[in-house]
Amino acid sequence: MTTATEVAERAEAAASAWAALAPADRARALRAMADALEAARSELIDLARTETGLGQPRLEGELTRTIVQLRLFSDVVATGHDLDVRIDDADPGFILGPRPDLRRYRVPLGPVINFAASNFPFAFSVAGGDTASALAAGCPVIVKAHSGHPRLSDRMGEVAAAALESAGAPPGTLQVVHGQALGLELLSHPAIAAGSFTGSTGIGRMLADAAAARPAPIPFYGELGSVNPVFVTRAALDERAADIASGLAASVSGSAGQLCTKPGYVFVPEGHALDGLIAAALTEVPEHRLLTRSISTGYEEGRERLIAAGEAVREGASRVDDDGFSWVTPTVVSIPAARLLERPELVEEVFGPFAVLVEYSPDDDLTAIADALFEGSLTVTVHAAKGENVRDLLEWGAGHAGRVIMDGWPTGVSVTYAQQHGGPWPATTLDVSTSVGTAALGRFQRAVAYQSVPQDLLPAPLQDANPWGVPQRRAAAGESTSWGTR
Amino acid sequence: MTTATEVAERAEAAASAWAALAPADRARALRAMADALEAARSELIDLARTETGLGQPRLEGELTRTIVQLRLFSDVVATGHDLDVRIDDADPGFILGPRPDLRRYRVPLGPVINFAASNFPFAFSVAGGDTASALAAGCPVIVKAHSGHPRLSDRMGEVAAAALESAGAPPGTLQVVHGQALGLELLSHPAIAAGSFTGSTGIGRMLADAAAARPAPIPFYGELGSVNPVFVTRAALDERAADIASGLAASVSGSAGQLCTKPGYVFVPEGHALDGLIAAALTEVPEHRLLTRSISTGYEEGRERLIAAGEAVREGASRVDDDGFSWVTPTVVSIPAARLLERPELVEEVFGPFAVLVEYSPDDDLTAIADALFEGSLTVTVHAAKGENVRDLLEWGAGHAGRVIMDGWPTGVSVTYAQQHGGPWPATTLDVSTSVGTAALGRFQRAVAYQSVPQDLLPAPLQDANPWGVPQRRAAAGESTSWGTR
Repeated sequence: MTTATEVAERAEAAASAWAALAPADRARALRAMADALEAARSELIDLARTETGLGQPRLEGELTRTIVQLRLFSDVVATGHDLDVRIDDADPGFILGPRPDLRRYRVPLGPVINFAASNFPFAFSVAGGDTASALAAGCPVIVKAHSGHPRLSDRMGEVAAAALESAGAPPGTLQVVHGQALGLELLSHPAIAAGSFTGSTGIGRMLADAAAARPAPIPFYGELGSVNPVFVTRAALDERAADIASGLAASVSGSAGQLCTKPGYVFVPEGHALDGLIAAALTEVPEHRLLTRSISTGYEEGRERLIAAGEAVREGASRVDDDGFSWVTPTVVSIPAARLLERPELVEEVFGPFAVLVEYSPDDDLTAIADALFEGSLTVTVHAAKGENVRDLLEWGAGHAGRVIMDGWPTGVSVTYAQQHGGPWPATTLDVSTSVGTAALGRFQRAVAYQSVPQDLLPAPLQDANPWGVPQRRAAAGESTSWGTR
Repeated sequence: MTTATEVAERAEAAASAWAALAPADRARALRAMADALEAARSELIDLARTETGLGQPRLEGELTRTIVQLRLFSDVVATGHDLDVRIDDADPGFILGPRPDLRRYRVPLGPVINFAASNFPFAFSVAGGDTASALAAGCPVIVKAHSGHPRLSDRMGEVAAAALESAGAPPGTLQVVHGQALGLELLSHPAIAAGSFTGSTGIGRMLADAAAARPAPIPFYGELGSVNPVFVTRAALDERAADIASGLAASVSGSAGQLCTKPGYVFVPEGHALDGLIAAALTEVPEHRLLTRSISTGYEEGRERLIAAGEAVREGASRVDDDGFSWVTPTVVSIPAARLLERPELVEEVFGPFAVLVEYSPDDDLTAIADALFEGSLTVTVHAAKGENVRDLLEWGAGHAGRVIMDGWPTGVSVTYAQQHGGPWPATTLDVSTSVGTAALGRFQRAVAYQSVPQDLLPAPLQDANPWGVPQRRAAAGESTSWGTR
């Protein structure tokens, strides 16, 4: 039986060597990890199908995304841009007194414990976004595997760790452990410098509280619950009702709705006539097994409560098998906005293929209703007609979410430079960060400034000779003149 | 009596208008605030002298620093660099499927509660670094004034708020409140989006816990305790013992040692012969009143405990006046490293003009001793001879502090682009950030991405026309090709 101390100390032992790699070398190790996953593709996909019930095309796409993500992070690391090197030249005439030579860059925090998600066995699991960004930042990673796909997790860990080590990473750079108790023990271990998590609000809050309660608190990046409000204007509906119905149906039913960005509450004008279109679009969706027993239970409870509170637009099938897993097809209900305002406790994330159409009247003030009903979400979406002014809704969205979408659907989160996957509580525990996209790397770094350190003793990226060729932003002497005058 | 709700709602009402100002306009408001403080200089200095006991030259310098800091932040805001605008062009050939147009920038978090410090009545108080960086980020600020200088705080608030408003800031952009209970109530108010604090570890931890325990947790940036280890090599001492003694004396006694970067534990080789030099350098230091009664009590207790545990190098005066304030001159004691290792509980921050010389033997492993004795600090300093290899000590320093200094002293924190004022717990509650320098602004921002939003509905900095002229980093279509190949 592996103990938390053994695992944490192994990660700690790897930390300085992994942190010290030159960008090109760390980038090469990330590419090696990506290539090894590609080489093991068919074995990994088979394991994932068996353990998760997700379909082959979805799993193939997800593994591709995971591999591409590693190569993207590899490219980012290779540029050295994430080090954010800043150099203040010494300035004897500095307005506040002689300024010393000061050079700052970002260094890895140290070992990270990453609690994997059930719903993305590749993209938010052992080799997923949190792992990729922490490794890219220069931190060893311990993944607490999700109990929904334990064998896949072990195999991913073996393949990835072997590739990293063969490319020069120290042993212990990537480890996989099992069990919530061990995960919690690791989160509280003094050697652990940060935590990340993707999952439910309840577990995420418990872990965030544990991280905050440590003798030495550490940053904890949890991506938790999100209802992802969508607003459809009357004019948008007049313009393209059929497109909106089919888009909604696809976004609610894809991956059996088990996505953190699934649209949960969709505002549509009274008399929208979408019911038939949506029901028709959902008819063909095959029965799908939900990922875990607890997701199944949560889904059944939430679905029943909201069906009872509204009118069924399309009541999907739902049966529980002998193993306690639900097999479901999508359900959509409609509820008048006025009723939700009377019973705001009805607003909750139902994880699975389920959505609520919130019917509003011409007199309703949508942003006021939204203010009353919603906390933070990962996304807010607006469907408008061409040229329609929806500034108020977009502004409300920017105030309550990390991503604001027009005329599209929130599922499908591209891995890019400009991506933002976060949002105010309860979407995340710390909304100053993102868990998807290249900016995710910054979660696992802190800055260190070197004052008056001779060139030969400076870390490579801070030296004038700049042997790693990283971007260096330089503040020249003499710049402070303007700060002394009106 | 002002209530927390009134204050919070006033800040909330100011938030969107302050956030919406163009960079040039917010920059102008910050300059106006700086100019108003300059215009009120003599009145403010008089108030500060009366309330804090700090000397006029120190206060003049500190007010200058505060004013310069506002102008520096004004310049930073004007560039738009802090918005970190990233644009992903739509890419139909993106490797993971068609990529939408995605544009990301950083937006203000919302109202910030800033708990002011006692030891810097200007630089870490009403118009100090936390306030300046939060205002620059676009957040309204509520300052919980320190009880050590209440009248100065009110007057600073009046002058600064009037200047901001006259330059176009909405009413409520800057408010000052008094009392710890009201401060705590505000920290827990739903309208507050972040907290900042400079002060003791005990109070800082209490506030951090309160921020983490909210129904919706918020980031809390506390700058707490620091012992700021200094390592002097034998060769450095051989080279310049007198300089080191006088530098240490000045750094320990400046502002009566009431600085978060005061060197607390200074490692010197056995047989160093510094005692006489240090005692001589400290003889002329006049008696100084400590800032508050609680600092006085803490100082007396810590000083006595450490005097009892070591040998006095120079035992300064210390008397408590009828009001409960201590009047002190500097004290330095020496303690063998071996004794500290036996009694590590002796390592603590003694806030005031006090330092410990830690005497090590030629066989001692300095980084191993430091590992055993110290958690995080704001600074680590190394004094070495010219050309001496002290890589191990510098690396240890980078792992335990936000700033690593060579051949200098940690007091005196320049306000610049490359500055880092932070460090692992207990130096700060969240070591991914800095509380001094232009990077401090980022603490009060989160990112929002806009997906497929038409040009005329995009926020100004994300538009192709770029009316604010901010830096835009652009990822072109076609870049993903290399992520699909080995």
